[in-house]
Amino acid sequence: MSAKLTVLKLGGSVITHKDKSLTPNLPAIRRLAKEIASAKLDSLILVHGGGSFGHPLAKKYKIREGFNGKASQLLGFAETHQAMVALNKLVVDALIKEKISAVAVSPSSFIMTKSERIHSFPLEPLTKLLQLGFVPVLFGDAVFDLDKGFTILSGDQLIAYLAIHYKAERIIVGVDVDGLFTSDPKANKEAKLLNHVTLKELETLMQQIGEAKVPDVTGGMPSKVQEMIPAVEKGVNVLVVNSAKSENLCKALKGERVVSTVISKL
Amino acid sequence: MSAKLTVLKLGGSVITHKDKSLTPNLPAIRRLAKEIASAKLDSLILVHGGGSFGHPLAKKYKIREGFNGKASQLLGFAETHQAMVALNKLVVDALIKEKISAVAVSPSSFIMTKSERIHSFPLEPLTKLLQLGFVPVLFGDAVFDLDKGFTILSGDQLIAYLAIHYKAERIIVGVDVDGLFTSDPKANKEAKLLNHVTLKELETLMQQIGEAKVPDVTGGMPSKVQEMIPAVEKGVNVLVVNSAKSENLCKALKGERVVSTVISKL
Repeated sequence: MSAKLTVLKLGGSVITHKDKSLTPNLPAIRRLAKEIASAKLDSLILVHGGGSFGHPLAKKYKIREGFNGKASQLLGFAETHQAMVALNKLVVDALIKEKISAVAVSPSSFIMTKSERIHSFPLEPLTKLLQLGFVPVLFGDAVFDLDKGFTILSGDQLIAYLAIHYKAERIIVGVDVDGLFTSDPKANKEAKLLNHVTLKELETLMQQIGEAKVPDVTGGMPSKVQEMIPAVEKGVNVLVVNSAKSENLCKALKGERVVSTVISKL
Repeated sequence: MSAKLTVLKLGGSVITHKDKSLTPNLPAIRRLAKEIASAKLDSLILVHGGGSFGHPLAKKYKIREGFNGKASQLLGFAETHQAMVALNKLVVDALIKEKISAVAVSPSSFIMTKSERIHSFPLEPLTKLLQLGFVPVLFGDAVFDLDKGFTILSGDQLIAYLAIHYKAERIIVGVDVDGLFTSDPKANKEAKLLNHVTLKELETLMQQIGEAKVPDVTGGMPSKVQEMIPAVEKGVNVLVVNSAKSENLCKALKGERVVSTVISKL
């Protein structure tokens, strides 16, 4: 891979209506596809979250907790995976409409986890796909787990893994808030945006959040931020940007200045 | 895998309208899902063809021939794969509606070919899926190829590979004719159905067809039949059955007598 790789996460909160089960935000999906197309990147991996397609079903059938031995849960797993396939189809269709050579890559077809962490990840097809110039589109998925039978593999765990393996230049995380704040911006209007956080600052913050010594500065996304730490340690810069706001994602992809939080090693 | 495995192929000619681009045969898909559900098999792998979803696009963009270096063909590959994902979604949705724990498994996400033949096939997730009691649903797909960049992997090559690897009891191939005939039944009304063909007879026939010494007894499907030979050599029985006719597939799955051609080693 000669061109510098960007790993882009599109949050489920942006591409679906999180409060309405199985409801895509089609205008947002179309707009984001246009923004990605207009950025004209040479090397891009896209991963999206589940929003109201993945989370309600995964919760209903307790997929993350693993197989409980009941046939009804097998059907629940099938429904959960299929809902994610449906959302993925909408995203890939929108990208192809913008003439992006986007290829759906289904995590559960090849990635195995062990106690919820990525265990085996045969990268050969994905590597070939990137070499040829395609844009792979993966997603948080219901996957098979060596210990638990199955579980949920988050899009956040995926992006960090991919960014590290492919030595990505950067991760861009598109969410529905402006970045990381001094406290939860959805709960506290006084919350101030953190423009830049170093790895050391982030680790201290995460520990304090864990001990409930400080407010949750991640805006309700501590596990999301936690997943980024191994990638930041490897020197990958992470940009958290509000992609629910028009043009933000496009600017971020082009490297233009945009309201956001940058997480970097130093 | 304790239960005896059936590998079922649903031909693209049955689940789509072959003469209308991107047009599914939804009543047939729903009927087949009901027939599969009523057969109540313990262990099943399903693979479907492309019909009017896969073939016209694959042909238009010359996907089987490999990458020609042009960006327009990359988009063509993306469209071809995405069309197959769309057809697969219809099949899996119909199965889930019948309470079958069907899981879409996307060949291009994990299988690599070398000059059109399966080269690497990490089986761990699929094995786990079968052990848990799911029904994996694969499909003929546009896949990545070590020599050609990409190509087409037929559902027929897939079923033989899977049947051999998982020591399947049988392969059932659902097509839109009653089986193999003494000549092409679509072209010749005098064609007689062959109820049973041994491996040796089949090999002789295939050679004669290749040399154009005899009519194409496969009903226009010589490459389909050719792909079955390695599985038959390993002792897998192949049943070719007209699944466009109501109840035929259900009977075949249950092991009941049905108009068909059986191909066996002896």
